[in-house]
Formats: sequence, C-alpha cells, structure tokens
Amino acid sequence: MRPSGRDLSEMRQVSIEIDVTKHAEGSCLIKVGDTHVLCTATLEARVPPFIKGSGLGWVTAEYGMLPRSTTSRMRREAAAGKQGGRTVEIQRLIGRSLRAGVDRVALGERQITIDCDVLQADGGTRCASITGGWVALRLAVNKLMKAGDVISDPLVDPVAAVSCGIYAGQPVLDLDYPEDSEAGVDGNFVMTGTGKLIEVQMSAEGSVFSRDQMNQLMDLAEKGVAELAALQKEATGA
Amino acid sequence: MRPSGRDLSEMRQVSIEIDVTKHAEGSCLIKVGDTHVLCTATLEARVPPFIKGSGLGWVTAEYGMLPRSTTSRMRREAAAGKQGGRTVEIQRLIGRSLRAGVDRVALGERQITIDCDVLQADGGTRCASITGGWVALRLAVNKLMKAGDVISDPLVDPVAAVSCGIYAGQPVLDLDYPEDSEAGVDGNFVMTGTGKLIEVQMSAEGSVFSRDQMNQLMDLAEKGVAELAALQKEATGA
Amino acid sequence: MRPSGRDLSEMRQVSIEIDVTKHAEGSCLIKVGDTHVLCTATLEARVPPFIKGSGLGWVTAEYGMLPRSTTSRMRREAAAGKQGGRTVEIQRLIGRSLRAGVDRVALGERQITIDCDVLQADGGTRCASITGGWVALRLAVNKLMKAGDVISDPLVDPVAAVSCGIYAGQPVLDLDYPEDSEAGVDGNFVMTGTGKLIEVQMSAEGSVFSRDQMNQLMDLAEKGVAELAALQKEATGA
Amino acid sequence: MRPSGRDLSEMRQVSIEIDVTKHAEGSCLIKVGDTHVLCTATLEARVPPFIKGSGLGWVTAEYGMLPRSTTSRMRREAAAGKQGGRTVEIQRLIGRSLRAGVDRVALGERQITIDCDVLQADGGTRCASITGGWVALRLAVNKLMKAGDVISDPLVDPVAAVSCGIYAGQPVLDLDYPEDSEAGVDGNFVMTGTGKLIEVQMSAEGSVFSRDQMNQLMDLAEKGVAELAALQKEATGA
Amino acid sequence: MRPSGRDLSEMRQVSIEIDVTKHAEGSCLIKVGDTHVLCTATLEARVPPFIKGSGLGWVTAEYGMLPRSTTSRMRREAAAGKQGGRTVEIQRLIGRSLRAGVDRVALGERQITIDCDVLQADGGTRCASITGGWVALRLAVNKLMKAGDVISDPLVDPVAAVSCGIYAGQPVLDLDYPEDSEAGVDGNFVMTGTGKLIEVQMSAEGSVFSRDQMNQLMDLAEKGVAELAALQKEATGA
Amino acid sequence: MRPSGRDLSEMRQVSIEIDVTKHAEGSCLIKVGDTHVLCTATLEARVPPFIKGSGLGWVTAEYGMLPRSTTSRMRREAAAGKQGGRTVEIQRLIGRSLRAGVDRVALGERQITIDCDVLQADGGTRCASITGGWVALRLAVNKLMKAGDVISDPLVDPVAAVSCGIYAGQPVLDLDYPEDSEAGVDGNFVMTGTGKLIEVQMSAEGSVFSRDQMNQLMDLAEKGVAELAALQKEATGA
Repeated sequence: MRPSGRDLSEMRQVSIEIDVTKHAEGSCLIKVGDTHVLCTATLEARVPPFIKGSGLGWVTAEYGMLPRSTTSRMRREAAAGKQGGRTVEIQRLIGRSLRAGVDRVALGERQITIDCDVLQADGGTRCASITGGWVALRLAVNKLMKAGDVISDPLVDPVAAVSCGIYAGQPVLDLDYPEDSEAGVDGNFVMTGTGKLIEVQMSAEGSVFSRDQMNQLMDLAEKGVAELAALQKEATGA
Repeated sequence: MRPSGRDLSEMRQVSIEIDVTKHAEGSCLIKVGDTHVLCTATLEARVPPFIKGSGLGWVTAEYGMLPRSTTSRMRREAAAGKQGGRTVEIQRLIGRSLRAGVDRVALGERQITIDCDVLQADGGTRCASITGGWVALRLAVNKLMKAGDVISDPLVDPVAAVSCGIYAGQPVLDLDYPEDSEAGVDGNFVMTGTGKLIEVQMSAEGSVFSRDQMNQLMDLAEKGVAELAALQKEATGA
Repeated sequence: MRPSGRDLSEMRQVSIEIDVTKHAEGSCLIKVGDTHVLCTATLEARVPPFIKGSGLGWVTAEYGMLPRSTTSRMRREAAAGKQGGRTVEIQRLIGRSLRAGVDRVALGERQITIDCDVLQADGGTRCASITGGWVALRLAVNKLMKAGDVISDPLVDPVAAVSCGIYAGQPVLDLDYPEDSEAGVDGNFVMTGTGKLIEVQMSAEGSVFSRDQMNQLMDLAEKGVAELAALQKEATGA
Repeated sequence: MRPSGRDLSEMRQVSIEIDVTKHAEGSCLIKVGDTHVLCTATLEARVPPFIKGSGLGWVTAEYGMLPRSTTSRMRREAAAGKQGGRTVEIQRLIGRSLRAGVDRVALGERQITIDCDVLQADGGTRCASITGGWVALRLAVNKLMKAGDVISDPLVDPVAAVSCGIYAGQPVLDLDYPEDSEAGVDGNFVMTGTGKLIEVQMSAEGSVFSRDQMNQLMDLAEKGVAELAALQKEATGA
Repeated sequence: MRPSGRDLSEMRQVSIEIDVTKHAEGSCLIKVGDTHVLCTATLEARVPPFIKGSGLGWVTAEYGMLPRSTTSRMRREAAAGKQGGRTVEIQRLIGRSLRAGVDRVALGERQITIDCDVLQADGGTRCASITGGWVALRLAVNKLMKAGDVISDPLVDPVAAVSCGIYAGQPVLDLDYPEDSEAGVDGNFVMTGTGKLIEVQMSAEGSVFSRDQMNQLMDLAEKGVAELAALQKEATGA
Repeated sequence: MRPSGRDLSEMRQVSIEIDVTKHAEGSCLIKVGDTHVLCTATLEARVPPFIKGSGLGWVTAEYGMLPRSTTSRMRREAAAGKQGGRTVEIQRLIGRSLRAGVDRVALGERQITIDCDVLQADGGTRCASITGGWVALRLAVNKLMKAGDVISDPLVDPVAAVSCGIYAGQPVLDLDYPEDSEAGVDGNFVMTGTGKLIEVQMSAEGSVFSRDQMNQLMDLAEKGVAELAALQKEATGA
C-alpha cells in the first residue's frame, strides 16, 4: 500500500493556474499534490551567441527551490555562491525536454527562458517543472502568435513529465516524497501528448532492475503523461 | 497626482494570508498592492557560533527575488554565483529590524531564520518583507509557546515597515514602482506597533532634502505603520 | 553507413591496461577507440559525514577532461573557477552507477574515490569512465581483500556502460564523436555483467522517439555491455 | 561621561592632509581621531554602460579595510574571495552620498572613482570616508577645471558625514569605537555644507528610539557636519 | 647517498614520446623517472587583447595535476573552485620560460597555449613541464612552418629545465620526491640548449645558503640541461 | 644613464618609520623612493593545523596593493573575487623569506602574520615588503620577549631584499618602475644581514642572460641588502 493510499497507477491531484504573475509573458502555478512550482516564461529578442544569425530560436530553463520549500531548510544557493549539481542537472533536463517539443525554425531567432521555482516540495519537482514549464511556454508563444510575430505554431504537441518507480517492490506512478526517498528504482519520463518519448531516465542506487520492470514503469508513465497533457490543454484553452 | 490615483497618504491594498506552506514553522504571503512576498520562518535549535552558550536567541533573514518577479527578467543570483549588493543590504536590514523587536533572553538559545522571497515586485519589497517577516516570526514563536518551549513571550510589539518619499514634489506614503523610480527622495521606516522607531533610512540621489520634508515623511510613515500593525494583529489573531 | 565503417552493432576496439600509475590503489587506462580515459581508485579510511558510524562504505567519482582532449581546446575548469554542468552531471552518474554494484555493508566504513580523467575524447567518455572506473574499483577492492581488511567480496558483478543512439535513422551501438554530434536520439546504458539494468538515460534534442526504437537501443546496449564485462574480467583476472 | 572624556557634542580631532599619493588625480589622508582613511580619486574617460551616450557623468566609490586596521586582524576580503555585506553596504552609501552633491551634467561624460581604504579604524570609518572622499573628489574636479575640460563647477557644496548615537542614555556626537560598540541607537548623517540632508540612517539593534531622540541626534549631526565642511574648505583651499 | 642510488650529478632516466594525442597541434609525454607529464600545444589565430594589432605572437601555459598523481589524493582544483597558489606560480613560470625562447615577431600574431598535465608525480614536475612543453611547442611550430604560415623559425634554441638542491649537505642534480621533501635548499634552473640562463629560482625554507653552494648547483644544472636539450632535439628530429 | 640619475649601484632613498598603527603588535611604513608599503605584524596563539602540537611556530604573509597605488587604477582584488597570480606569488615569497630567518622552535607554537599593503608603487614592492615585513616581525617578537613569552630570540639576523636587473645593457641596483618595465633581466634577492642567501629569483622575458651577468647582479644585491640591514637595525634599535 502507498503511504497516501493511492492506487499504484493513480496520480496525485493536479491543478494548473495560469497568468499568476503580471510581468511574465507566460506563467502558471502548477500543483501536483503538495508539490507547488511557479513557472514563468520570459521572451527576449536576443539568442545565445552560438546560434546568432542562424534564424533558429532557443528555449532554455532555470530551476530553483525556495530555501524552506523542503521539510528542513536548505541553504539558499545564491548565498552558497553556486548552483548545486542536482539543480544544474534538473535545469538542463527541463530545457532539453522543452526544446524537443519546439519547432525552432518556426519560433524564429528569439529566446524563451522558463524559470521554475519550487514554492513547496513533496517529490517530483522536476516533472512538475517540465509540465508547468510547457504551459508557461505555450502562453508566451500564444502572445507571439496573436501579435503576428510568429506565423506557424512552433509548439505542435504538449510536453509533460511524470516520475515512476519501484516502491515496496511494486511499480507506482507519480512518487511523492515519502515514496521517492524509499524507492529502489526511480525514473523520470518526458513525453509528448501523443505518447512519443523525449527523455527517459531510470536509475537504481544500491539495487538493479530488469527490462520487465522498466516496461511496467513505461506503461504507467504513458498513462500519467496522457492525463497531464489533457490538463495542460484545458489550462491553456487549446 | 499619483500614477495609481491614490491620495498622498493612502497605502495600497494590503493582504496577509498565513500558513501558506506546509513545511515552515510559520509562513505568510503578504500582498502590498502588486508586490507579493512569500515569508517563511524556520526554527532551529542551533545558534551562530558567536552567541553559543550565551543563552540568547537569534533572528536572521535572507531575501531573494524570483528572476521574473520584475518587469524585465533579472539574472538569478544563484547562477550569477553571488548575492548582489542590494540583496545583501536588504537582508541585513530585515534581520536587524526583526531582532530589534525580539526579547532574545525570552527566546532562549535558538535561531529563527526568516526567508523573504519576492514572487512579484512593484516597489516596496523590503518593507513588505519586514512586515510579512514579522508575521511568520510571530507564528513560529506561537508554536514555541504553545509547546511550552518558551514561557515569556519574546515578541512584545509588532514590527512593520513602510516606504515614503518625495514624488513630484509631494510627500507620499507607500511608493509603488512607478513612483519609486521617479522619487527624488525615498525612505524606509521600520517601527513598532506603538510607534517607536527601529530603523530610519532616507536617501537622496542627485538631490537633497530638508528637515521639514523629513518630518513630513515621518508623519506619513507613522500612519502607514499603524495600519500595517493592525493588519498583522488581525492576521495572527493577536 | 557509419563514418567509421563499423556495423550497426559493432563496438569500437576496446583495451584496458591496468596498474598504470604507481600511487593509486587501483588504476587503468581504458581506450574505447580514440576515447582514452585514465581511471584511478583512491582508498580512504574516512567516509562522508552523512554515513559516519553507519558501518556502510561509500564510492564516489570525479570526472574531468584535459583541456586539449578535444578537437578544439576547452577552457580548464580549474581556471574557470568551477565545474561545468555537464561535468557535474557526468560525475554524479559515474558515482551512482558504481555504487549500485557495491555491497556497501561488505565494503565496511571506508570510501573509494574514482577519478576519471579524459586524456583524449572521441565520444562516449562517460561510458568509458564507468567501465574503466569499475576496473580501478575492482583492483582497489582486491587489495583490501588480499590484506584481509574486507572478507566478503563487495563487488558481485561487473558494472559497465555503453552508449547507443539513432544515427542517420538507424540504431547504432557505441557512438563515436562524429555520430554523437549528429544523432537525433542518444542514450547511455549502465548494466551489470549479467544484464541487469542500473541506469538508463535516453534523450532527444529537437526530435522524439518511440518505444520500439527504445527497445532496439536496449538490445544493442545488452550486446555491448556483455562484451565490455568480458574485457573487464580479463583485465582484472577475475 | 564619554570614554574619551569628550563633551556630548564634541567631535574628535580631525585633520585632512591632501595630495598624499603621487598617482591619483586627487587624494587625502583624513584622520578623525584614531580613524585614518586614505581617499583617492581616479578620473577616467569611460562611464558605465547604462549612461553611455547620455552626456552625464558618474561618481562611484569602493571601500576597504586593511586586515590589521582593527583591534584583532580581519580576514583580507581578497583572500576570502568576496566583499562582505558590510563593505558592500558602505561603499554603496559613499557613492550615493557623493553623487548627490554632483551636478552630473556639468561633470560631463566621465567617471570618478573614489577609493576609501581604512588604514586604522576606531569607529566612524564610513563617515570619514565620505568626508575625505569628497575632498579627493574636489581635488580631481579642480584639475579638470584648471585644464578647461569642465567649465561649470559640478560641485556646488561640500558633502560630509558624521555619526551620532545614544550612548549610555545620552545623545552623543561622533562615536568612537568604544562608544559605537555599546550604543543602543546609532545613526549616520550625510549632509551638504549648507545643512541640506542627503542621507539619514538610524538603527537600533535590540532597542527602539523616539522621534525626540531622533531630533536630538539630528541637531548634533548638523553641528558636526558644519565643522567638517569648514575643514574640507580649508583643506581644498576653497 | 641518494635514496635512488644515483650519483650526485646523475639525472633520472628521461624519455620523451611525441604525438601522443590526436587533437593537439603538438604533444608529448615526458617521463623524468616516475614523473610523467602530458604536454600539448594548442595553436589559435587570436592573441590576448594587450598585444592585438602588434604583430607579435604569444605563448602561454597552464599546469595541472591529476588528483591521484600524488602519493595521497589531492583535491581536484576544478572542484575546489580555483587554482591554488602553487599551480598559478608554476604555470606563470612555464609560460615565461617558453616565451623567453621565442622570437615573437617571427611567430606572428598567433597564440600557442601549452597545457602541462601531470599524470604521475615524483618531484620536478615544473621542470619536466618546461622541457616537455618546449617539445610540444616545437612540434606545433613545425606544422606552422611546413604549412608556410611562418617563414623564419621562431624557435632558435631549445628551452629546458632541471632542479638541483642541497640534499643531506650535498649538491645534487634532478631531485626526486624523497629528496625534494628533505632538501634544505632547492632550485629550478631554466636554460637554453646553449647554456644561456632564462630563469633561476633558488629558495631556502628554514635555512640559508652561500654563493659557493649556488655556484655548485649552477654547474650541475648546466650539465642536466645539456642532457635534456640533446633529448629534445632527438625527440623532435631537429 | 638611469632615468632617476642614480649611479648603477646606488639605491633609492630608504626610510623606515615604526609603530605607525596602534592595533598591530608590530608595524612600519617603509619608503623605498616612491614605493611606500605599510607592514603590520599580527600575533596569534593559534597555528595552522599542519603544525598543531609540533611545538613549532609559523610566520606567514599577505600582500595587497591599494587600487590607486599605481599609475592607472587597478581593479580591487576583493571586488574581483580573488587574488591574482602575481599577488599569490608575491605573498608566498614574502612568507617563505621571512620564515627562513626564524628559529621556529624558539618562537614556540604561535603564528605571526605579516600584512604588506602597498600605498604607493614605483617598482620593487615585493622587496620593500620583505624588508619592512621583517621590521614589523622584529617589533612583534620584541614584545613577546619583553613579556617573557619567548626566552631565546627567534630572529638571529635581519632578512632584507632588493631587486637588481639589466637595464639598458647595464647591471643596476634597486630598479624603480621606469627601469623595471624596460629591464631585459630582473631579479629579486633575499638575504640575511650577514650576506647569506635565502632566495634568488632571476628571470628574463624575451631575452637570456649569462652567468657573468648573474654574478654582477649578485654583487650589487649584496651591497644593497647590507645597506638595508643597517637601516633595519637602526629602525628597530637593535
């Protein structure tokens, strides 16, 4: 049995509130159970030097946790003087995942930066960041299209992510923190709304797993992402 | 006339929502017009080395702005590798201000860290942080008292802060961003609920001011802080 | 056709030379084609603070590239003042992968640090680091066992890694740099010598992939890791 | 009674020696009792990017303490790898204060950097830095005017600063270190030679103060700054 | 008697293997006894800003030690976040020494960066770096000349270096680590193949030395450098 | 002819003023021509970890230049976030040189830190720092001896330093900045008052030198150091 009483293939309650900050070109507050992430999209005319003049757009992401988003207070990374390894790894994943769903030619030579800041954490913050980050991205791109700056929609299919893992010997969908901290195997799955794969990361620490188990987790992930993609569409009116 | 249409001595709409995050010992989301700050209090048994064994408690603060809390995106300080001068100055002010309202003997040898994170900025973030920070502090101390860990209340009187300035030649209360960026003189006033002064900071850049003007701003500040203190009491049920 | 002329499921020439440095407790120079990585194992009596007194051992890893291991010179990370995001991500993967193959109770309260330094790079440096890192680890553990410091072997099964990807529309094993820089999908597979999975990472940038493609890559990876494990055993005389 | 035996409204002995270093465009060694600060002005043709092309000048400041300017040795900030919060706060104050006394149009598009380095500290280093910094600035501007590079004098009125505080229950002028470390309230007052206010900073740590007390400190500050302005004029031959 | 059994004026076995990495414009692995340094030369069209447009070339160097090149593991400088004082001192010495043997007019406006990475250390790493670094430089310059990019040879005479010291009261040539860690006086001598001096550094820690002793060390150094220069010529086919 | 009109073997005017700061255990302001360095000695009971419990003392040094000690303003190292390579090299030299003249057993388990801060630079700052640093050290040790904390004098012979170089083809003593920036060869010589050598550093950039020239510079250095040692004795009343 799961600590939360959920079924093995049951996601937490998910809500996506859009337009939560007045300055950003796109924004949402995504809540996946007790994991709350504020996602904003910033649109800029400039692109990174390595694609200047290429006509291609760029999407990148940054991730952070408020110091007391967690059970015990974490040291503020700005005070520590650098982003930790976990932060860097997560923000690279978010950026790479969102870029995979973007037609960079259609976007044109502009950059969209997605900031994902965790206000409250209870497991699965990187997946919530990708799912919410896509919503912020969608809203910013909508503005570009409405203004006629972009003609062909650079976002064909939603991008969403969910975690799955082996908890107490069972494959479970959408791990919360109590499950995450005990899971022998734990994976993050980024997919499109039509079930195509963008990123699969499964890891075992102090354990190993089989291809059968991997396939069970993939099945759960497909179910979860389909549910998230429906919510993304609903939130963005697509 | 003020850009917002407010009277010279009229504060923005202020709301304080408490218990907004499940992990912190105390928390609130304070909204002063479009300035929104999430304040959390973290209680720890340890104190800084320089007061170890003294029997005294410690209150400290950290401050941050989400990258897109502002009109154009600011660089994330964790990515930049250090807290900027303005951040450091503000968090030192918050900590000093809140400590001035604490009976450190009554608190006993424990530390409370107040994190003030700006979700949306529209001027006056440091003042909102102090006012909201005191609410988070109050709630954390309430827990200590309820648990019997602290007997005599270390917080006698609320601490709140407001900005005032000379805008378009007139003294105005509670500057929003359009006023703040144009004001010739701009001050921050930290006081107790009974009108005692804790910190006064007035500065002119490219201008000067008289003692008369200073007194006018002080009068406005007293009015503003009294209103804030009433809201703090209401929010914390004191 | 692959740029190197290899078959789709053909690995590069792999060699593992052991005991290449006189100071380390275990060491090897692994060559996977033109990718050359020097791996050393350092044995220390101390463990990280978070497991002190637990009786458990720890295995960790660090990764670096010599500035001119690459086609054009990279900036030296020590001079830049920090390890880049890619470096951090890779060394976390190496450490996590090797730990998954260690019986930490049998190892006892001691730490082994695996340093993987790339002397020459031609794609697949993280996989070569894991494969070579395990050899260095094995040699260091052999010393512990020979000295009677460890009784039960903490390394039951080799750990090795290989990359696979979709290159020019075809699934290929063991990508070299020209393939890696063109591949639409690219994965790293860490497994034990008996084919159990430890870590699977597949990512697409600017593309997506299907579960069928994923399974084809998994099949290639199983073949590759089996070959590497045989070489590891040969090199370490196991 | 004050530890130094001074009257409540008596400043320490102040001396200002000009042209103490051969390289700087303006320089002085200011001694306020045992507080000794070396102030230099550096004139440069370039201005910061944010005012390039505006026709306006810029004045900025940096502050430092020699490691053994204090009773016990402080860690060298260059060795620590960053300027501490107190340093940053002080140098921002110095720059802001001096700029308030500058006609930036008259100065023209050039930058003057004031370096204030504390050779020996005994309280009031930031105030001595502002007072001495203005002298260095005056001397550098004199050179510009003599050379005909600047026609209209950008410095109309001297800028000077003094600290006041409540020591042993009494308002006192110009706190030395023994007073500063005991004072319940402590303020820094930056004014022009004609008594206009530029910056007022009063703070209480672990205490509060009244408007009456604030006014008493203001009165003392006006007296002190008038004395300092006279010495500045004398030193610069104005 | 020396720990290694060598005569007082006997160098360790030295070998220089060239072209050890496929990417660099010049490279060698130099072994001076158990001290092994990988040296690479990187050729770039750009020069540092301070000589841009001067028509002169530049040669610079960087130095690093692999963490387990030493008896006990050193902290990786990239992880520590900066190059230590010893590293900085050594790489400045290598750069300065090699530049002294270069006709910068003949080289033309291009930069050659020499990277010296110590794979295994047993004393004398900076001298081996200079000697091997010159070989890498020679090979890179050969390419430039072969391609006709440089007409007149900018390298007239080899540059090599050796350490000498007073060990157990005796002047000895080419200190290995056991000698180096015990030597009362220890010097590094950089010379050209024809015996001209480029850099002499002798230091005593907790001891002093006489001009006579200095001359004895100079004599040994001349012998050692002559042997090294012969090997450099042999290795580079000059 | 030298720019200053001095004879080839003539030092600049040297003065040493002692007890220039009230906090340090020893201090002096040394002026070697227009090079002015403030040297302080700080005495502490603690020693670095690596000699804890050994009964031996430690002497170390730090070096800094005020930003406008030079012709054009240098960036403040504290603001840049690290000490540059030149600074690190110099302070290591100062510490090593002074330690060579200390009987660390006689000093006992205590640390003396010498801070050398350049107020005005005109060439030869590192030599002036060593010479003045020894005076500060002597004064601090005098206090220890007077207090009876140290019985046997740990400082037997003064330590002083001078630069010499080949300027316009001639060997000259005590280079000032105009000479230093033009010299083909430039050396720093640290010796005891009785002419024993502690450190010799000679380097050529873009040039070479002979043993004959080296000996001429040594002769000049011996003359210069003897003069400096006499001044050190006079200043410290020894």
